[in-house]
Amino acid sequence: MTAIRSETRPGAYYDSAVLMQLQRALLGLPGVSDAGVVMATPANCELLAQSGLLTGAANASGPNDLLIVVKAGSEAAANEALAQVDALLARRRSAVEQEFRPRSLETAVKQLPEAGWVLVSVPGRYAAGVAREALDLDRHVFLYSDNVPLADEIELKKIARAKGLLLMGPDCGTAIINGVGLGFANRVRRGNIGLVGASGTGLQTVTARIHELGAGVSHAIGTGSRDLKAEVGAITAHQALDLLARDPETKVIVLVSKPPTPSVVTKLVAAANDAGKPVVVYFIGYPPPAKQLGELYFATGLNDAAELAVEIAGLEIRGFSNPRTSNLYLRGLFSGGTLAYESMLVLQAFLYPLYSNSPISNSQILPDPLKSQAHTIVDLGDEFFMVGRLHPMIDNDLRLRRLKQEAADPEVGLILLDVVLGEGAHPDPASELAPVIAEIRANRPELDVVVMLIGTDADPQNVEAQMERLLTADAIVLRNPTHAISYVARRMCVPPKLEGAPVALEKLNQPLAAINVGLESFYSSLVGQGAQAVHVDWQPPAGGNEKLAAILAKMKSKQ
Amino acid sequence: MTAIRSETRPGAYYDSAVLMQLQRALLGLPGVSDAGVVMATPANCELLAQSGLLTGAANASGPNDLLIVVKAGSEAAANEALAQVDALLARRRSAVEQEFRPRSLETAVKQLPEAGWVLVSVPGRYAAGVAREALDLDRHVFLYSDNVPLADEIELKKIARAKGLLLMGPDCGTAIINGVGLGFANRVRRGNIGLVGASGTGLQTVTARIHELGAGVSHAIGTGSRDLKAEVGAITAHQALDLLARDPETKVIVLVSKPPTPSVVTKLVAAANDAGKPVVVYFIGYPPPAKQLGELYFATGLNDAAELAVEIAGLEIRGFSNPRTSNLYLRGLFSGGTLAYESMLVLQAFLYPLYSNSPISNSQILPDPLKSQAHTIVDLGDEFFMVGRLHPMIDNDLRLRRLKQEAADPEVGLILLDVVLGEGAHPDPASELAPVIAEIRANRPELDVVVMLIGTDADPQNVEAQMERLLTADAIVLRNPTHAISYVARRMCVPPKLEGAPVALEKLNQPLAAINVGLESFYSSLVGQGAQAVHVDWQPPAGGNEKLAAILAKMKSKQ
Repeated sequence: MTAIRSETRPGAYYDSAVLMQLQRALLGLPGVSDAGVVMATPANCELLAQSGLLTGAANASGPNDLLIVVKAGSEAAANEALAQVDALLARRRSAVEQEFRPRSLETAVKQLPEAGWVLVSVPGRYAAGVAREALDLDRHVFLYSDNVPLADEIELKKIARAKGLLLMGPDCGTAIINGVGLGFANRVRRGNIGLVGASGTGLQTVTARIHELGAGVSHAIGTGSRDLKAEVGAITAHQALDLLARDPETKVIVLVSKPPTPSVVTKLVAAANDAGKPVVVYFIGYPPPAKQLGELYFATGLNDAAELAVEIAGLEIRGFSNPRTSNLYLRGLFSGGTLAYESMLVLQAFLYPLYSNSPISNSQILPDPLKSQAHTIVDLGDEFFMVGRLHPMIDNDLRLRRLKQEAADPEVGLILLDVVLGEGAHPDPASELAPVIAEIRANRPELDVVVMLIGTDADPQNVEAQMERLLTADAIVLRNPTHAISYVARRMCVPPKLEGAPVALEKLNQPLAAINVGLESFYSSLVGQGAQAVHVDWQPPAGGNEKLAAILAKMKSKQ
Repeated sequence: MTAIRSETRPGAYYDSAVLMQLQRALLGLPGVSDAGVVMATPANCELLAQSGLLTGAANASGPNDLLIVVKAGSEAAANEALAQVDALLARRRSAVEQEFRPRSLETAVKQLPEAGWVLVSVPGRYAAGVAREALDLDRHVFLYSDNVPLADEIELKKIARAKGLLLMGPDCGTAIINGVGLGFANRVRRGNIGLVGASGTGLQTVTARIHELGAGVSHAIGTGSRDLKAEVGAITAHQALDLLARDPETKVIVLVSKPPTPSVVTKLVAAANDAGKPVVVYFIGYPPPAKQLGELYFATGLNDAAELAVEIAGLEIRGFSNPRTSNLYLRGLFSGGTLAYESMLVLQAFLYPLYSNSPISNSQILPDPLKSQAHTIVDLGDEFFMVGRLHPMIDNDLRLRRLKQEAADPEVGLILLDVVLGEGAHPDPASELAPVIAEIRANRPELDVVVMLIGTDADPQNVEAQMERLLTADAIVLRNPTHAISYVARRMCVPPKLEGAPVALEKLNQPLAAINVGLESFYSSLVGQGAQAVHVDWQPPAGGNEKLAAILAKMKSKQ
């Protein structure tokens, strides 16, 4: 015989930690076999149902209502347990109020004026308001809260950027600033590896592994999980990257993210390419364009990212100058389908928008293979072109015509070709390609022609003679396809200008002092790490009563 | 004053090489400034238009009609050029017929009975018929032709597989069999690296680079560009992989492909994992799951694939035994969102179908985060779960309930958990997780529980004690996330059974003898490489006259 009893408290606000404690306390009462204390969202009600804790009360509750359910051996025991809820909540509260705590951010800032950082972990619907207040007070914000609307995130990040402040989050789990962990963070050695991450456990795993390998971390800046989505445009990641690029304590930067939006990737990679120090990039699920391109290193896993960073941090780093860049378009004219794909793979990390008839993703599909647009790579050996025509490895006619067509487009700044030698291929492709390349180079010296030449010293065409002939036509010829694509990537990749005010370096390298709004455990953690901190005894407007809060807001706006 | 004149020859068949030669010959005539000789497909007509060669005749022509266009300084010169077309075609033909050549595959086989291979490069719409004939004669087929219908490809490959024959193609550009290049192939040293490639220039680039690095190639088996698409199911790739796994000349296998279909990837990776020798895998555009998992090595580029293969071929290779495998499902219950993503990234290469609320691609979306299906990875820290609830790194309640739920499902064979230590996290997660894990292991000893434990020796929880506690509960605990996921991948990855008859090894390692149907240049190339070869003087049924061919086919079917 078991009995299930429940109670609903409409529109009541409680800290999540308080709810957990209440659930545990109920479980400890005599006769109680299970208990649930949740906000009555559809997901939480379904979870109660899975635990056999759903009652009719759930249907009458809304997502802002607190639902308390108790399962006990008898009806009497269940009722007895529910009757203790207020006493259990009160016991908890009195423990908290033993010491003096400010009730507002403003007061907290007066109490600890040197606090440069505000940690916010209040429920999502209140979080944007608190973060805005912190930015108004000129503080960096670590915004742990999730369920914050995207529009609020964008607005907050724009405000922060304009003021030269970091808005880390929302849904930012992890940061390490000047040796002090914010939110969830492993204790790691200080060192010369700086990190930027749209990924909490990503930062944790990489920093923990760096520590295990005997190296250390300068700063790890979380950006929030949505920062690299198109709508947000990686505002925080760009600021953080710029900050670490200027930070003298940081020798190598690691950039980690959950799967990002392609248009965001290219700008961030361009910024990383321009950082002036080595950057290890790992975007989970995004195919790495190569192992290394210039000072950019692409990792294949969290572990690999950590190992690469430690390895590079141990190297003597020499200055690296980027080639001059071009604002014009790339056109790739390929005879080899796989070489076209390989080029797409690398260049999609650098150039946007990029189109092809051999696309890696659907958004890259070139509508008309006969007409290039923006950056374009065409596989001229695709079967679309091949009806009654020899393959472009045998017959150069199609490619020669397209070459002239692309060169006549004033928006084109670089043409990339493959020349594939070997059995079955044209006996002397350079003899037909070189005169057209020479003519293009003579007419438009600013238009580069880059050739990746694939062949062996045993091939019938004589690879050295082919190379010589193409070089004489003033083409740039590279025999390793990775080197050729790498050259094109770095040549066409224009670093973005950082918007807003740069974040000041000084605050970053001062001893960390912070204000905590939300989860008490984060405050304890700061103090435990030796940081100066103040905890705000935060309550939502009107104690969480939505109707009253709306009236208050209306009155305030009329002032 | 220029004049453009054109001529249409309806339903006429000419070899593509003949068309190219005709175009060149026309261009060499007095007064001719440009010429086009094409089958009148929409693409080819548009290309003529781009070259200023389109006339009204194009509109009256269909894709099976030959369109000849001449641009000359005067009307007289243009007409004069067109009048020479027959003479130019006849000149070409007489040059070809100097030596005796069989007119059918059957005759060719009688002429060279030891020919184990047939190269087919006739136009796409005739190619399937010729390939089928070659399979009926028990020969391996290298099918260069493109524009072959997908249904024909599937049928041909199934016939081939049942007979233990390879159907390489359609649209197969490259192969190297026993030192002889078929189609487009670089001349490379013989050696101990075998390749399988759904990618012509991919095979060329990798083999050329292997040669450049001083190593060599046993065999390179092309599969055709569509082999790794879901419809075809990598029939040829599986056969080729199995063949090279058995080939004593092959020490390391390289598997290269253009972007494959996910369901095909997992089976092929499982087969590679079971090959009993090292396999370097590079699927362009498919994110590599890791750098190395067991004897599988994942490359980040064509260049990298070649370098890895050469490096591994130089190593002393020790035997490697796979862990026992499971046909049951994986369930991953994560507190770290990034660790969930990272696990998806690795496991999507091994397990299909795989679902998650942190999917890498849309097809992986878990419809209901509260219910697992097939292989599933759940990020329990996702904001869907987080309303009014502490993060699972602080509060284990949600995960403990889900753990029990998954363990109650008889289809579940392995549960993967992350345990993330550090500042802000639960002070002793093992104390709550271990008892539940111990209970699961006691009730269902065949159900493995694998824990990836993230933390440092400086973390407040004492990572060693946490590890000890979880091990005592009979969990498998690994501190490196890559090692943990690798263990799960190899444990859950079931090698597929090869369908059909295995391809005989003997033919592969005999001196190559082949019959060529289509492009003459491929025949010359075979002979130039010292292979025995016969060229078939192939003509389409009824000389390319479609109506007549249809009547003949009808008569034949009535016999």
